[in-house]
Amino acid sequence: MRRLTPVSWKNVRIEGPFWGPRQEVNRAVTLPIEYEQLKKTGRLDAWKLEWKPGQPNPPHHFWDSDVAKWIEAAAYSLATHPDEQLSRRVDEVIDWIAAAQQEDGYLNIHFTVVEPENRWKNLRDMHELYCAGHLIEAAVAYYEATGKRKLLDVLCRYADHIATVFGPGPGQKRGYPGHEEIELALVKLYRVTGKKRYLDLAKFFIDERGRLPHYFDLEARERGEDPKAFDLGKYDYNQSHLPVREQTTAEGHAVRAMYLYSGMADVAAETGDRELFRACERLWENVTERRMYITGGVGSSANGERFTYDYDLPNDLAYAETCAAIGLVFWAQRMLQFEGDGRYADVLERALYNGVLSGVSLDGKRFFYANPLEVDPQAYLCRPDLYRPQAMAPTRQEWFGCACCPPNLARLLASLGGYVYSQGKGELYVHLYVGGSAEIPLDGQVVHLSQETRYPWEGSVRIALRLPSEMRFTLALRIPSWAEKANLWVNGQVVELEPLVQRGYARVKRLWQDGDVVELDLPMPVMRMEAHPAVRDDCGRVALQRGPLVYCFEEVDNGPYLADLALSREATLRSRYMEDLLGGVVVIEGTARRRVLTGWEHQLYRPAWSQMREVPFLAIPYYAWANRDVGEMLVWIREV
Amino acid sequence: MRRLTPVSWKNVRIEGPFWGPRQEVNRAVTLPIEYEQLKKTGRLDAWKLEWKPGQPNPPHHFWDSDVAKWIEAAAYSLATHPDEQLSRRVDEVIDWIAAAQQEDGYLNIHFTVVEPENRWKNLRDMHELYCAGHLIEAAVAYYEATGKRKLLDVLCRYADHIATVFGPGPGQKRGYPGHEEIELALVKLYRVTGKKRYLDLAKFFIDERGRLPHYFDLEARERGEDPKAFDLGKYDYNQSHLPVREQTTAEGHAVRAMYLYSGMADVAAETGDRELFRACERLWENVTERRMYITGGVGSSANGERFTYDYDLPNDLAYAETCAAIGLVFWAQRMLQFEGDGRYADVLERALYNGVLSGVSLDGKRFFYANPLEVDPQAYLCRPDLYRPQAMAPTRQEWFGCACCPPNLARLLASLGGYVYSQGKGELYVHLYVGGSAEIPLDGQVVHLSQETRYPWEGSVRIALRLPSEMRFTLALRIPSWAEKANLWVNGQVVELEPLVQRGYARVKRLWQDGDVVELDLPMPVMRMEAHPAVRDDCGRVALQRGPLVYCFEEVDNGPYLADLALSREATLRSRYMEDLLGGVVVIEGTARRRVLTGWEHQLYRPAWSQMREVPFLAIPYYAWANRDVGEMLVWIREV
Repeated sequence: MRRLTPVSWKNVRIEGPFWGPRQEVNRAVTLPIEYEQLKKTGRLDAWKLEWKPGQPNPPHHFWDSDVAKWIEAAAYSLATHPDEQLSRRVDEVIDWIAAAQQEDGYLNIHFTVVEPENRWKNLRDMHELYCAGHLIEAAVAYYEATGKRKLLDVLCRYADHIATVFGPGPGQKRGYPGHEEIELALVKLYRVTGKKRYLDLAKFFIDERGRLPHYFDLEARERGEDPKAFDLGKYDYNQSHLPVREQTTAEGHAVRAMYLYSGMADVAAETGDRELFRACERLWENVTERRMYITGGVGSSANGERFTYDYDLPNDLAYAETCAAIGLVFWAQRMLQFEGDGRYADVLERALYNGVLSGVSLDGKRFFYANPLEVDPQAYLCRPDLYRPQAMAPTRQEWFGCACCPPNLARLLASLGGYVYSQGKGELYVHLYVGGSAEIPLDGQVVHLSQETRYPWEGSVRIALRLPSEMRFTLALRIPSWAEKANLWVNGQVVELEPLVQRGYARVKRLWQDGDVVELDLPMPVMRMEAHPAVRDDCGRVALQRGPLVYCFEEVDNGPYLADLALSREATLRSRYMEDLLGGVVVIEGTARRRVLTGWEHQLYRPAWSQMREVPFLAIPYYAWANRDVGEMLVWIREV
Repeated sequence: MRRLTPVSWKNVRIEGPFWGPRQEVNRAVTLPIEYEQLKKTGRLDAWKLEWKPGQPNPPHHFWDSDVAKWIEAAAYSLATHPDEQLSRRVDEVIDWIAAAQQEDGYLNIHFTVVEPENRWKNLRDMHELYCAGHLIEAAVAYYEATGKRKLLDVLCRYADHIATVFGPGPGQKRGYPGHEEIELALVKLYRVTGKKRYLDLAKFFIDERGRLPHYFDLEARERGEDPKAFDLGKYDYNQSHLPVREQTTAEGHAVRAMYLYSGMADVAAETGDRELFRACERLWENVTERRMYITGGVGSSANGERFTYDYDLPNDLAYAETCAAIGLVFWAQRMLQFEGDGRYADVLERALYNGVLSGVSLDGKRFFYANPLEVDPQAYLCRPDLYRPQAMAPTRQEWFGCACCPPNLARLLASLGGYVYSQGKGELYVHLYVGGSAEIPLDGQVVHLSQETRYPWEGSVRIALRLPSEMRFTLALRIPSWAEKANLWVNGQVVELEPLVQRGYARVKRLWQDGDVVELDLPMPVMRMEAHPAVRDDCGRVALQRGPLVYCFEEVDNGPYLADLALSREATLRSRYMEDLLGGVVVIEGTARRRVLTGWEHQLYRPAWSQMREVPFLAIPYYAWANRDVGEMLVWIREV
């Protein structure tokens, strides 16, 4: 049922001017910083299981996952960028993890040292299966990156144990995780080991979800609790309000939702379950057509870090957790493989270049948890009821008590190569334009492909093929939905593009020769984007977008009172590369209008007579905001 | 120091087409409904002191005030509109109150039956002095309305008791109320009894406030509590963060602030304390020039029902409690008496016709607690984190657990006559244009004045004077700040207005004759109002105002997605009286623009190309919203 397979991150080397340095910062700065934070906060030493009741800093029930994501990130990085120190550090941590495994295969710090009597007793709240999932992902990645089996073996034993505890058989628990994640991890484990029981377990977790009698009710009663006392509200919070096939709107905690939908897509792909895939499609449409910020951020409410209702996309109170945008990338990539439909790649790219990348500072040292589209630092300071402390601060933070986002960013950036290409029978897909090279297995041969591009700053891409012999296949080049007048050349000859484009890809089928060169040009005019009229907060406003990048206005460039700034419909918008700004960015410049600030002495309201004045404006890519002075920021600007 | 004295509500009869029916609904519908609610919820029977520990529904620590405000409202109403049933009901309740008084004069239900051991031990939180204040106000009003002394004598005894407990003397507590109110009540008691100890006590409460060592710290420690554990935050919440004379910004709980500032103005007036008056002026400027909605609503945050920071006036999350707008009317009236400065009357009128009057439904049966300027009912339903239940519901409620607003509205509407006129030495001020008549003591004589007007629907006012003999005095007629081209006639002769206007009043000084007629015309064009550019939420928007009325757009008239509606700068705005709509209102009509809703299938964002279409719009006075179908509402409309 799934037409395409992603080309592994192992086979893709990223070297272009945009993502190359970012991967390098991730490797050289972010990963070591995260290691230090994990160490400093006790998350690494916790694996030694030395904590005793009464001691301070008890291992939290999701610490395991923070370390797991860091190992996973390190694994991806090591595959393409060997690093002796990093390798030693990871092996040491893996030794601790292996030593922490219990005789029956069980492996969880909190439920081994803090409350061993409560193992598997509160799936709804306690993240045991979630932590297991992240450990499995780490193990698979580390095995694939290095060939070392130690962690993989540990996690296979743990997964085997979990498969005895959970399942439809007699004496087994019919439970499933309150925080999804293990579903997609088990599919990865199935793919790397070939053991179907892992796929079956993933499918079990997905199919059981939301069935009646409700497992979370049953286990709450077993704990002697009233199920209705669930302090996070109703079961839509964790997507168990309905069986997943009956769900049509994205509900609840956004990260959980993204992980669940990714797992559903994985299981659908592996089992050929069209009904499950259709459920994914319906949810996809709900998310991307009604509940997603233009940055690819999802989950508009800080309260419950969750989805709310159609078109409810407040800009200043946006939560749009970094992890949720990352989860959207995961899900999009999975949906993309089914039919190679560019609408999934469009969203993947939107999230990646905007709502994901904004999560980390340019120097790789600080992180955003929430990614709002409009910020007034004074509001954060003075309205503590509206903004979650730290998570919604208007500056990136060094770390978080709940530290899911930093290592999640690290693993996505380190594995970015895995999102660039796919291959299918006689088909080679290029999803992202990223400088570098790849070895792509195709129909029993290996295609060597290299990309040269300054994307996203410029839209021209040069792709060179090196082939062992001439090969007939379709090279499918993504034409992003924002690209209106693309041009294509093969070996310098213009190829008429329009007839070739299907579902967002230009499908160039021919007998390819070693040394063939394909050139694509995607013009990148500055676009004014509008939102659906039901998005209350964006009415009368536009967002500037150029290529895949959404832009924003910062106080440091445009002065305070950004809400009073307005673009006239006729204003010319010029783009220009500024090498010295924010590590090198294309800015958008032009003239905007704002009110003249005169005659307001002792007045708060007056008959409207304000004169407008023309002021120069400068907009920068959204991902790069908050790397200079603290101040206001705005994505959606008024249009007059 | 205070130049003017308000003409008592006893002396003013309201009969005009706008306020006459409202007072009648207040008397005939609202007061009986409130009586029933007070009865149903146990607030009346609580005075019988029959509650015993262990029984349900213990008398809450501010129930006394709800009943007190109802008595006060009834008193005002009885003065001008005798009502046998109402009179009997009040006398019965007064009998219970009198019987509930303790031997030492103490009088508070909660601290008599629920926790007698904690009397006066938690001034910060427990509203004892606040309840005392409302009872005093009720007693003064009832005595003035009916001449009956019973409640007044009870409250004098209670006030005498309080004056022994609190004060600067040895063994006395140097405390003051956590919820201000008693200060202004004690000044009323001083005025009606002439006993200076009540004024002294009011002054003591005001002067002690915020001094160090902080009384609320001391009493918390005496209770064995950590003062820092105050769950409402810092002492700015109750305006005790600084001595009141050092306060320059309005902070904390808005109703408390309004009552405090009113009390400060009263004490300043009675003691000639210019420093205290200047503190009032500074706070006035902060409130009205930086922290007040165009409706006269104050306190923009539901969290703490409080002020936030300069220019923070969100429309949808506005709290703008009805009681706070009422408190602003109280304070404005007090400030107005000092020098007869129309800027105070302008705010008084703004609050009265908009943020106060919106608090009650047209039929007098339902009440708003919060008065937002933009409403999307779905947001209230789906974002429980952002909207306080019941208090911020998009429909008026029959009652509230914290029921301060309904009886506060009732007492203001019933005493409205007291806000219309003031007299001073050789001066008679007309602040509000309200049909009806008044007997005004002036320089030892009595002026009979009658007003005929359809204000606020039309701006022409006819004032007829009946005098015992010819009298020389200044008739000061308010020229609202919104009135640009007023015209004045005396006995049919045009009088040039401009030279007569000082501080917002046309001061017509002459030898008046019995039968003289003054005619004033205040043209009422529809005005587009703008807010200071620092008010983020109002940038690019205008509010429509005509005369004193702020207008709004409701979904029932204009369809959904109100945020997408925009007025062009050139659009003609027509006003028209519609007799059958909302009890008869002047509506504003014209043509607005909104986006054509085509081409949005499967799209949430797209390059901005939407066509606009012209649509008719209809705006109604803000006070009248939410009297038809539940739906969206908007005050500040985009301008394009």
